[in-house]
Amino acid sequence: MKYQGAISKATIDRLPLYYRTLRLVQEEGSDIISSDELGRRLGITPEQIRKDLASFGQFGKKGVGYFVNELKHNVSTILGLDRHWNIAIVGMGHLGAALANYQNVSSLGFNLVALFDADESVIGGTVNHLKVDDVKNLPAVVQERQVDIGVIAVPAVFAQQVADALVGAGVKGIWNFAPVSLTVPRGLHIINEDLSIGLSALSFHMTHP
Amino acid sequence: MKYQGAISKATIDRLPLYYRTLRLVQEEGSDIISSDELGRRLGITPEQIRKDLASFGQFGKKGVGYFVNELKHNVSTILGLDRHWNIAIVGMGHLGAALANYQNVSSLGFNLVALFDADESVIGGTVNHLKVDDVKNLPAVVQERQVDIGVIAVPAVFAQQVADALVGAGVKGIWNFAPVSLTVPRGLHIINEDLSIGLSALSFHMTHP
Repeated sequence: MKYQGAISKATIDRLPLYYRTLRLVQEEGSDIISSDELGRRLGITPEQIRKDLASFGQFGKKGVGYFVNELKHNVSTILGLDRHWNIAIVGMGHLGAALANYQNVSSLGFNLVALFDADESVIGGTVNHLKVDDVKNLPAVVQERQVDIGVIAVPAVFAQQVADALVGAGVKGIWNFAPVSLTVPRGLHIINEDLSIGLSALSFHMTHP
Repeated sequence: MKYQGAISKATIDRLPLYYRTLRLVQEEGSDIISSDELGRRLGITPEQIRKDLASFGQFGKKGVGYFVNELKHNVSTILGLDRHWNIAIVGMGHLGAALANYQNVSSLGFNLVALFDADESVIGGTVNHLKVDDVKNLPAVVQERQVDIGVIAVPAVFAQQVADALVGAGVKGIWNFAPVSLTVPRGLHIINEDLSIGLSALSFHMTHP
């Protein structure tokens, strides 16, 4: 399936919200949900929701609503959440530890399988029930546990060498939190996360109310 | 100035990247930068950069480039970074501590002026040279230090009461990291941050390469 050309980044960014809300609705015992109700729960207009979901085919029944299970399954397939990617986090500072405990990550079906740090006082300890391994063993552990996605939560100066080690060990994607531009081979998928973007957007809206 | 109608969210999200790169370029001693060079540094096409920056008027000289100082100043004004908003973080768990130390926030000119927690063992300690106050004193401290933006980094169950306290004490904006939908008065600006969105986008691109 090829969706990238047709789907805007804004839509892709809303899909995990849909997925989590549909999961919750299903747990509550509902089989069908209207775009009005989805909109109310998410603070998104029903028109926007219908537009977003129309890109992926017809999952709804006009005048009734969306079939929750079918729509959840389709959103999951589109996002690739059904693949249950194995994840490793490198760097167990505050940010790495926060990510290791972040329920929004596990609730999307990602498997956290390895944690790494270089600090002797942290190695061997546990974070969210998982043992912290020595980053020196990263190549072996990443291969052994079939890590798909490496999360970089180390200081900027170490980020490139961690990226090189992750790529060398065979990860297919990198989620980078270090404030530095990384060089990775063509074809490797990388998302550079910048937490300050949300704060800038808030400042923008406060400045131009 | 009113920009919201005309500027896409994607453009607003790229502006802090432009701002930081321009600051760096200026520190390196350059007065002028081309869209090609900006693009190379940011991994964005020069066409996209010219399109983004054209929304804010003419800051460049055709065939030469952008005047770094002027463009930096204008991006700063557009984002409202020149207002140097005062920020308070509530919740000194891993995420709150990571945010308190996050250099990308201070590099945009935000002033971190207060930290809060409810845990006796954390109150009175320091994070990034700032004392952690008891959340019971939030109303007084927020007013005293003229906090503009409250950052919510507490567990979901406490998030609404923290939001109420921040709003009551007069903040104008909330940056919410708790995975819960908050009720705030009309006119108050709120950004709900969901770190898992970046990971979902990565999963999407790995699924549809």
